[in-house]
Amino acid sequence: MRKIQVKIPSCPKSSYCVAVGSGFLSEVLPQIKKAMPGKELFLITDANIAKTKHLKNFLGRQQLPRFIISPAGEKSKNIKTVIKIIEEMEKRTLGRDCAVIALGGGTVGDIAGFVAAIYKRGVPVIQIPTTTVSQADSAIGGKTGVDSSISKNAFGAFKNPAAVFIDVRTLETLDKEQFNTGLVESIKHGLIADEKYLKYLQKNLKAILARKSEPLEYIAVKNCQIKASVVEADPYEKNKRRILNYGHTIGHAVESASNYKILHGQAVAIGIIAANIIEQKRGLADEKRLEELKNLFAKLDISLKIPKSITKKQILDAVKRDKKAVKKWPPFVLLEKTGKVLCRNDRFAHNVERKVVEETIDILLRQK
Amino acid sequence: MRKIQVKIPSCPKSSYCVAVGSGFLSEVLPQIKKAMPGKELFLITDANIAKTKHLKNFLGRQQLPRFIISPAGEKSKNIKTVIKIIEEMEKRTLGRDCAVIALGGGTVGDIAGFVAAIYKRGVPVIQIPTTTVSQADSAIGGKTGVDSSISKNAFGAFKNPAAVFIDVRTLETLDKEQFNTGLVESIKHGLIADEKYLKYLQKNLKAILARKSEPLEYIAVKNCQIKASVVEADPYEKNKRRILNYGHTIGHAVESASNYKILHGQAVAIGIIAANIIEQKRGLADEKRLEELKNLFAKLDISLKIPKSITKKQILDAVKRDKKAVKKWPPFVLLEKTGKVLCRNDRFAHNVERKVVEETIDILLRQK
Repeated sequence: MRKIQVKIPSCPKSSYCVAVGSGFLSEVLPQIKKAMPGKELFLITDANIAKTKHLKNFLGRQQLPRFIISPAGEKSKNIKTVIKIIEEMEKRTLGRDCAVIALGGGTVGDIAGFVAAIYKRGVPVIQIPTTTVSQADSAIGGKTGVDSSISKNAFGAFKNPAAVFIDVRTLETLDKEQFNTGLVESIKHGLIADEKYLKYLQKNLKAILARKSEPLEYIAVKNCQIKASVVEADPYEKNKRRILNYGHTIGHAVESASNYKILHGQAVAIGIIAANIIEQKRGLADEKRLEELKNLFAKLDISLKIPKSITKKQILDAVKRDKKAVKKWPPFVLLEKTGKVLCRNDRFAHNVERKVVEETIDILLRQK
Repeated sequence: MRKIQVKIPSCPKSSYCVAVGSGFLSEVLPQIKKAMPGKELFLITDANIAKTKHLKNFLGRQQLPRFIISPAGEKSKNIKTVIKIIEEMEKRTLGRDCAVIALGGGTVGDIAGFVAAIYKRGVPVIQIPTTTVSQADSAIGGKTGVDSSISKNAFGAFKNPAAVFIDVRTLETLDKEQFNTGLVESIKHGLIADEKYLKYLQKNLKAILARKSEPLEYIAVKNCQIKASVVEADPYEKNKRRILNYGHTIGHAVESASNYKILHGQAVAIGIIAANIIEQKRGLADEKRLEELKNLFAKLDISLKIPKSITKKQILDAVKRDKKAVKKWPPFVLLEKTGKVLCRNDRFAHNVERKVVEETIDILLRQK
């Protein structure tokens, strides 16, 4: 097992450890109990995980009070679910001395993290991500949130976990689409921070898709290291952390315009292509990287086609509602070259004219 | 105008300034706009304030997008109101570059502070408290929260304000009961931190009740200084901040058992009496302070009688649900002497046996 420390220099007490390994899920609960003696533990998981061996594996012979999010997935990632969970915790008269354990994918982690952030003004949360996307991204870095009836993550908080446990064997039960689209965040990490890592992903794709432990552990560690280095520098997303948003501005907009029928990873892949088109228009990129990326996404069976039901206006409207928008227009993260984000005057996100974005969306909509 | 700085040593960027004065409400909005150029401002206030001159006074010729909490008061302090406000902010496509202004009493401040804490993972909040209790207590220190259908402040967060403006002239329109019960937090501050201040309150009660600017400004400053010194030492209530909870353990329980029909200040007055009874049982206090306190509360027309509809069991059950409870029993803050909290082995909150608490509740229930 490897351990990566995520430091929060502005608040050293909030620093935490990410443990990465293969097949150690059954050892996690005893470790938590040892590290948090006397804490009442409350488990949040979802209907998908409850069906797999992971829940049994995690609990062993122990029992924990729990809430099973049902249905699993984005549909339940809203404030109503948060209210249900908190009222369940209150019914069990859990005090501020409790801790929340999140066992599951991004949805479980986001909901449980937000619950922990606001339950009686905050209790610790332990993240045990079980999907490619949550292991690479959402379980690390402290962003939590749930949707309102109007927009995504309208309710949210920064809540650093007390600890993260990544067992790559939990990926075994993931369906192919979830597994593959979740790898897009790893590709993003390579693009923004480490060209060699991107090459590693291209070269070892077969072993990764065969879900072999070694490459999965390697990418889990690499993702943590990259994300940790960014989050450490800027935990509350004032500037540098923005780079993690690469491909997410148009990506989120497409996801939102599709009414979340498009998976997050697929939307981000489209967003990465969009960023590349903008980069080309600015003379920052050539077609070569675009072709490489399209090739990589094709190998992952990720379609870059935007469904016909989605209009340009819907995407543009969603862009304006971006959380990072200032005066209803978000700044864009762009690459200077593979592995390096464009930084000008100390800023990592840049204004892109509306016209350029519109042209880019036109190109995306024509994509087959 | 006097300015008091509230420092957050663990996070210097979160430090903020409390301005105290008399009749400067009309100058506040220009000051906010100057300090936060380019921020979209969103005003949260309530139906009571909307009826007074304060809202007009605050806005002058300006207009701000706003949400008026209706009905005013505890009834609206719940997660449903928070959802309504956040959806209103989303409809106005407010981004993360907006700031929330809370103009009103404790309910408005608590709701608006919590909204600001969780809207798109956090936006700044400016507190403009307009009641004795919010000026003395809730607007300073960053505690925010709203109720669930089961308990008080089940949803909450620590959210330091970006700034606090206390204009004591806003107290003019407060009804007598609200005004007087709000002074209980000031009495608490004297009891836990400053015997001289308690004496000042006793001596100048007439001028305070006549709502003269000078003593009101004096107590606003004094309350800020005392609260700031405690909050600075322990912003997240790990230990010393507990002392602000003096009188609140039994107080909250009585308030909760009354189904919030008893005003917060009255409940805390009862809780302070309860703490005194426990102190006497422990040999920490004599009857003299009890008589003085009863006398002071009588002058404020605050009844210490618990309504007959409330049972001992209801109060005890509420004690067990206290947010600070560890293994379903909360620690109690006690005085060593007037102006000084009992501290043993570096702890400011202490275990009090269930039997002692039960006897204390018996005495309270017999009180006329």
